[in-house]
Amino acid sequence: MTDTPSTRSSLPVLGELSPFARIAVTATVAISVVAIVLDFGLHADPTILFVVAAVGILGLAWVVGLSTERLGAVTGPQVGGVINATFGNIAELIIAFFALQAGLIDVVKASLTGSIVGNLLLVLGVSVLVGGVRNGTQRFSEQIAGSNAALLVVALLGLFVPAVFAFSSADRSRGTLTEQSVLVAVLLILGYVLALVFQFRHPTETLGGHEAAAGHGGPAWSTPTAVAVLLVAAVFLTVLSEILVGAIEPFIARFGFSEFFVGVILIPTIGNLAEHLVAVQLAFKNKMEFAMAVCYGSSLQVALFVAPVLVLIGVGIGRPMDLVFEPLEVAAVGAAVGISALIAMDGESNWLEGALLTIVYVILAVSFFELV
Amino acid sequence: MTDTPSTRSSLPVLGELSPFARIAVTATVAISVVAIVLDFGLHADPTILFVVAAVGILGLAWVVGLSTERLGAVTGPQVGGVINATFGNIAELIIAFFALQAGLIDVVKASLTGSIVGNLLLVLGVSVLVGGVRNGTQRFSEQIAGSNAALLVVALLGLFVPAVFAFSSADRSRGTLTEQSVLVAVLLILGYVLALVFQFRHPTETLGGHEAAAGHGGPAWSTPTAVAVLLVAAVFLTVLSEILVGAIEPFIARFGFSEFFVGVILIPTIGNLAEHLVAVQLAFKNKMEFAMAVCYGSSLQVALFVAPVLVLIGVGIGRPMDLVFEPLEVAAVGAAVGISALIAMDGESNWLEGALLTIVYVILAVSFFELV
Amino acid sequence: MTDTPSTRSSLPVLGELSPFARIAVTATVAISVVAIVLDFGLHADPTILFVVAAVGILGLAWVVGLSTERLGAVTGPQVGGVINATFGNIAELIIAFFALQAGLIDVVKASLTGSIVGNLLLVLGVSVLVGGVRNGTQRFSEQIAGSNAALLVVALLGLFVPAVFAFSSADRSRGTLTEQSVLVAVLLILGYVLALVFQFRHPTETLGGHEAAAGHGGPAWSTPTAVAVLLVAAVFLTVLSEILVGAIEPFIARFGFSEFFVGVILIPTIGNLAEHLVAVQLAFKNKMEFAMAVCYGSSLQVALFVAPVLVLIGVGIGRPMDLVFEPLEVAAVGAAVGISALIAMDGESNWLEGALLTIVYVILAVSFFELV
Repeated sequence: MTDTPSTRSSLPVLGELSPFARIAVTATVAISVVAIVLDFGLHADPTILFVVAAVGILGLAWVVGLSTERLGAVTGPQVGGVINATFGNIAELIIAFFALQAGLIDVVKASLTGSIVGNLLLVLGVSVLVGGVRNGTQRFSEQIAGSNAALLVVALLGLFVPAVFAFSSADRSRGTLTEQSVLVAVLLILGYVLALVFQFRHPTETLGGHEAAAGHGGPAWSTPTAVAVLLVAAVFLTVLSEILVGAIEPFIARFGFSEFFVGVILIPTIGNLAEHLVAVQLAFKNKMEFAMAVCYGSSLQVALFVAPVLVLIGVGIGRPMDLVFEPLEVAAVGAAVGISALIAMDGESNWLEGALLTIVYVILAVSFFELV
Repeated sequence: MTDTPSTRSSLPVLGELSPFARIAVTATVAISVVAIVLDFGLHADPTILFVVAAVGILGLAWVVGLSTERLGAVTGPQVGGVINATFGNIAELIIAFFALQAGLIDVVKASLTGSIVGNLLLVLGVSVLVGGVRNGTQRFSEQIAGSNAALLVVALLGLFVPAVFAFSSADRSRGTLTEQSVLVAVLLILGYVLALVFQFRHPTETLGGHEAAAGHGGPAWSTPTAVAVLLVAAVFLTVLSEILVGAIEPFIARFGFSEFFVGVILIPTIGNLAEHLVAVQLAFKNKMEFAMAVCYGSSLQVALFVAPVLVLIGVGIGRPMDLVFEPLEVAAVGAAVGISALIAMDGESNWLEGALLTIVYVILAVSFFELV
Repeated sequence: MTDTPSTRSSLPVLGELSPFARIAVTATVAISVVAIVLDFGLHADPTILFVVAAVGILGLAWVVGLSTERLGAVTGPQVGGVINATFGNIAELIIAFFALQAGLIDVVKASLTGSIVGNLLLVLGVSVLVGGVRNGTQRFSEQIAGSNAALLVVALLGLFVPAVFAFSSADRSRGTLTEQSVLVAVLLILGYVLALVFQFRHPTETLGGHEAAAGHGGPAWSTPTAVAVLLVAAVFLTVLSEILVGAIEPFIARFGFSEFFVGVILIPTIGNLAEHLVAVQLAFKNKMEFAMAVCYGSSLQVALFVAPVLVLIGVGIGRPMDLVFEPLEVAAVGAAVGISALIAMDGESNWLEGALLTIVYVILAVSFFELV
């Protein structure tokens, strides 16, 4: 099994890695291959497939992060910012694409809100908690955190307009919800392009937060190696995402989870865990504003890029997805954004704030599990 | 047509104006007279009447602004503040009065929320965008912007209490919605009087934002000239507002707009455009906190003065209007206030924030047009 | 009547008090005894019982405050913080316990939200108003106010999750609302314990706000005297709360109030008035951040301690109470928290803000009275 071309090509790659990273990359490749064999060779049990594919995706998202980090360091902050903004949520986007194709539209929509809520409550909460236990009360620039929070709120307002109109309007005459969602998606993508232009012109302002990691710049790969790693990881990501999505429905049926629970809690955790660990690590190193920027930046990408792109793809592949989220989703995201903005605004954080944010996430997760 | 008494009386007036202003004032008077002739003389097509009256009102609101600015400069900041607070939303108030009299109660209520949303998303957005493109990241006193935002939120909470109660309460026993709205209106006007007292005592704090323009003090008119201009403009405003309102229903029928769209988007734009240009101009000159104060101050006047006065007038003229806004209106205003407060709080703004605010306004306008 | 053991035992106690406090303590004891005699001896009219018991509870809550303040001064800020956090809302907790036992579950839930709204609109409003009239524009540390506000928002998000899920979810499968509320209650109490740990470790940060009063440290009682006063006052509180609760239903029937009005407006005023006066006094002395900390701290205790403890007690005594509040309650509390956070964030306050907060509270109270 270790003789497949992909693992062979990764051998020179491993030389530049720390011992831990070497093991992790090797394990990721091994698990990915196992998942593929289990699915196409052995037609294994869906639960096993779901778990193995999920673990593989976790690793692959982290490998994608390594290579984009390296490419960002090589190409400078301006091009690097665009690369990071494009590949930052790639795992999430690919999983959502297959789920959309499979007609799991509610899972896709739930995973979008789950990703935002997870970033703003769980990741921010654990970061603030770990950072506060390690470093005491942490002070940080309100400017960086605050302007990221403001952008995020504006982006989410736009994203949720169709949902709010859908609750309220009784008599619709001129258009349909999907038409409106397509219009909104185009406007949101316009906002995303403007945000990229802004970042390209002001590379020192940590808008999307991904420059945060620029400090160490990733492993010392050559540019071709980094591109090759990125491509190989993306191919594996695609295959494993298809396996994962194919196993969702039997997995749900087996354990009696709701599609909502899987979409809001499980999928975003699988797609984002690698990025989450970066934020926690930054908080541990007392770089709180960078940790916050990762959380906000990732949420901003979901609102301005992942969600509207999925609307357009959905129309393209004949699986139209509107942006009409459930009231519960709007409420959860609204609350998560409000509290994280508030915590950013006061310019300091302590472990109690982190613990309470995490508790709110647990309360939400328990409630989604119990009641929906 | 140029021989009517009003244009003759304005001739000495023109001498003190810049060449551009002279043309604008002359054009405004000409258009106003055209509108009157078209309506009373020629019984012209309602669409033409609507457009001509709207253009005339835009100009007249600007002329009112010139004369109150001058009166404010002559009488000092204390009396000037009261004059500005009284005449600042005069066009809006007069239009709403005639619409109320014509029984277009939904248009009136929609125009109140549209005015607030327009101020806080479109005007603020364009101001921040223009200011940011011209001046880069703009920093401003969080104190002035923040305390204006806080006052505005309090005022809007009061204004929206009847709507929230109306969504929720099932069994009403003691009073009616109109009774409650009258009580609320009286309390809001009490708040307005207190705000005027505050402004009278602390004229240097830019509460309503109208002192912003005190820098240049308007054209060098004598006090009697300024009063005469104000009175003449107000008379024209009244006549043109009546013409505009009379043309609303045929205009709606012709183009298939909803009353909601006209109320939320068109009417507030007509009534407020002059004030909007002031805000954009201030942002262009890098006076961001004054631009924000204009946006907040104008919204504050709508919540504490225009809306409650219309409730009382409605009861007086037998067209009772309650303050039970649509959920969509409450959500739109709540979102607009939240985001503008957030942008004020972080003490700096850049063109991206402005662009995103404007995009959110466009998303809202498109949605009102498409769906309601 | 003045010969009962309790008054005799309080005589040495009175020596350490100011003349005014001596009269107030004596009157409180006298009124408490009158209430007991009226109820058990004379079976008096419920309206009279309600009023006399309410006045007695007002006084007893203040006496409890005196003794915990003294115990806090004696034991140091760490133990003192825990004592204050435990006894700060004791009157409210005892009244709610009896109301729960009597099956008045809606009154109990309404009193929880009413307590929070009262703290954040009425008490904060009157404090800011009085402080602003006396001291002009008041500036204060945004840090203390801001971090208290952030904690409060997190706590309330947790508290309101069950209500939001209850609005939204149609098909519930795994659990019941009460099960979910018990889980949430346990997690909130975990948050409360963490908050106490935080306060114990960082006694100088005025988390709960009760250190505010540490300046004067209460009357110069010995520790045994303070403990004795606390116990005697608690016993009286218990008896009078039972009397008060027993009189609620006839009282409501007599005046035609709704249970909602009594729960949201009357009960919290009776249970909290003593604490309210402390906040107003602090604002008057220009200690605005302490006044705010009292308001936030008291609300935080309701959300993290009083409400979840009542859920657990309810299950224990066979009167299960869920945390599914009315939409109106969630909206009122959400608005109150939002505006008070905003006022805390801008770092200064003036009498106009206080007046408008108070007006919003009056609008809410009038609306509850009129419509619900």
